[in-house]
Amino acid sequence: MIRFYNCKILDGNFNIIENNELWVKGNKIEYIGRAKHGVFEREIDCKGNVLMPGFKNAHTHSPMTFLRSCADDLPLDRWLNETVFPMEARLTDDDAYYLSKLAVAEFVSGGITSAFDMYMFPHAIAEAAKSTGFRTAICGSVNNFTSSAPELEENYDKYNNYCDTVSFQLGFHAEYTTDISILRDIADIAGKYKAPVSTHCSETKKEVAECIQRHGKSPVELFNDLGLIDYGGSLFHCVHLSGRDIEILKEKKDITAVTNPASNCKLASGIAPLSRLDKEDIRLAIGTDGPASNNALSMFREMYLATALQKLQTEDASALVPERVIEMACKNGAYAMGTDNDCLAEGKLADIIMIDLDRPNMQPVNNIVKNIVYSGGNENIALTMVNGNILYERGEFFIGEDIEKLYGKCTEITERIKQI
Amino acid sequence: MIRFYNCKILDGNFNIIENNELWVKGNKIEYIGRAKHGVFEREIDCKGNVLMPGFKNAHTHSPMTFLRSCADDLPLDRWLNETVFPMEARLTDDDAYYLSKLAVAEFVSGGITSAFDMYMFPHAIAEAAKSTGFRTAICGSVNNFTSSAPELEENYDKYNNYCDTVSFQLGFHAEYTTDISILRDIADIAGKYKAPVSTHCSETKKEVAECIQRHGKSPVELFNDLGLIDYGGSLFHCVHLSGRDIEILKEKKDITAVTNPASNCKLASGIAPLSRLDKEDIRLAIGTDGPASNNALSMFREMYLATALQKLQTEDASALVPERVIEMACKNGAYAMGTDNDCLAEGKLADIIMIDLDRPNMQPVNNIVKNIVYSGGNENIALTMVNGNILYERGEFFIGEDIEKLYGKCTEITERIKQI
Repeated sequence: MIRFYNCKILDGNFNIIENNELWVKGNKIEYIGRAKHGVFEREIDCKGNVLMPGFKNAHTHSPMTFLRSCADDLPLDRWLNETVFPMEARLTDDDAYYLSKLAVAEFVSGGITSAFDMYMFPHAIAEAAKSTGFRTAICGSVNNFTSSAPELEENYDKYNNYCDTVSFQLGFHAEYTTDISILRDIADIAGKYKAPVSTHCSETKKEVAECIQRHGKSPVELFNDLGLIDYGGSLFHCVHLSGRDIEILKEKKDITAVTNPASNCKLASGIAPLSRLDKEDIRLAIGTDGPASNNALSMFREMYLATALQKLQTEDASALVPERVIEMACKNGAYAMGTDNDCLAEGKLADIIMIDLDRPNMQPVNNIVKNIVYSGGNENIALTMVNGNILYERGEFFIGEDIEKLYGKCTEITERIKQI
Repeated sequence: MIRFYNCKILDGNFNIIENNELWVKGNKIEYIGRAKHGVFEREIDCKGNVLMPGFKNAHTHSPMTFLRSCADDLPLDRWLNETVFPMEARLTDDDAYYLSKLAVAEFVSGGITSAFDMYMFPHAIAEAAKSTGFRTAICGSVNNFTSSAPELEENYDKYNNYCDTVSFQLGFHAEYTTDISILRDIADIAGKYKAPVSTHCSETKKEVAECIQRHGKSPVELFNDLGLIDYGGSLFHCVHLSGRDIEILKEKKDITAVTNPASNCKLASGIAPLSRLDKEDIRLAIGTDGPASNNALSMFREMYLATALQKLQTEDASALVPERVIEMACKNGAYAMGTDNDCLAEGKLADIIMIDLDRPNMQPVNNIVKNIVYSGGNENIALTMVNGNILYERGEFFIGEDIEKLYGKCTEITERIKQI
């Protein structure tokens, strides 16, 4: 059992509880309360710092780390066709495994305890999660070019019975890469398992316009009409939504709209209407997207942008306050991934981070939640625990592999892929 | 003499030089070149990391650290009148000294080696810079309520002969807080010393509209007509500029437009047209603004936002590339402050930072400049040297005061000020 003491605990409502301690037994939170007798393998003096639920990265493509700073400052079509696609074509499953582990290292160094991860190498992602101890919900990525509906169903079964930090959700890449016959097959699978389906949705104006041209309706309307989201799911990006789209999202209580503000900036896609969606009580979660389109994998950046861009979009400095944003980042992401790690409470999975207040950017401590969202950065992550195991602590990684060797391996892979 | 070896050096054009070392003697860079014999008090193995010129925070209000997370999510007028002004009224010079030192700690922990700092306690700022060893160009902040043109002239003389890391530039708060008779007096002083004048300019739509109502012209036109910017100066914010404003900035070669993107987001002021200004060859620098309106004091955030918001504004993913942004952050800010620390070269002031590439967010190293701007954060600052002295190294502060005591002192001040 691990004992955290001398800490401030962010409770389920993101209020601070003082003078309590938190115990972890196995992969769960055993106890939160006043000091009492216990037997521990480790006792951690938090020195007045904050314990809170880890950030949930609700949309990413972790193996794309090789593309960091390699595919920048290009319009979307050139970005995809000139750099992303040709380089991705050279990736092996083994490459994707190491590149995904590099992303895991970045996740845990930034307080991210789970990721909803879509990429064409589900096995590499699952192995990377298993070997590092990181929690990953793999998202299916079926499209016309890779994978298929039958393979999706196979993966659904396989990776939901893989190891206790890996799960799998039905998903496809996007409307613009997936024929309607495949979408129908996926809807059938969703119906069979009464399972949510997730996908990229309404990221760019062009995507929406072309979908309307093809099908006479927006992506959200199309997915709804096909029964794809009858059992919920996560819609990644949701930048360009119509009034009707928003009505549909509102009706479907199990849908999560996942925002990816840094990626939407970098690819000039636009600003998702988060304030409006939040006012309509549509569940919002936050993701970093992949390192090719961000380029960092930091939920601090995303949380900051989520609120900052809303203030610009609505011309209202009071728009989307940090108290809402932190709930999206910690709690709603857990809902999207279907994991029981949304808050710090007895019985919940022990996915916990410690925020270091002992840095100038957190001082004075007028308001911890506002400090985290408006001023926080990876420098403030003192410790990251996933499933009861400490994977990162004060600059050191405990992910089953020497970090320098991992950097070396990923550099080697990247250099090989870059050679034409 | 201090020797840095085993480093990558970002040269004056922000290209990487490999296999060179850099020596610092006194407060200057003594040598950059191949290894040769020397006698050193310290030799620093950079372990392959990057040496680059420090970031220049070209606009801030450092003593406002007490307002971090204390005045958030309010429209500008309520923000000023309900929180900022009443709390500022309780500040003493001694308070401002400690609060400014807290900002200095945050600056050096984020690789900032100098700041252009405007606040109503110039003596506190000067003393904070002197006692910590930080480089500060104080900017005059004359307005109808505090200071005056004669006091500005006194300060100009006093703080330009104070200590070797402190300088002073003529400046006033803003058009909307300063009567035209005072502006005329300041223009006279500028003419007498042939000196630049700096001020807040065109931050909000309302400010510009009211200036036009009062004077029949925009702030930039007014300052130009009054001869205030005949010898250059820095215009802070520059969010809402007309075509004629841009022409004036272009004609005045010594003007620097200083952008403060995080502040402009948080207060819902808008996006400054940086791409357009850059295309017109108008010098751009970058600042954090104060902790009340940001809330972090991180140039990584500002650099990222500078490019990210341009991509949104212009709907072009190729807008304002990191290579331009880093020049604004390191070089142009030095010009604005009138300090000879714009790049790493022999004879330049030793204001140097070391970027830690040995973190997941910098891996793989496909492109160092893009890595810094798109992925970098305070976690990547391994060392900050100002004027030949190391003020920060791997989490430790060397600013002449115990950091814990400084946090304690600033907390005490903040608690006192918050009590009504």
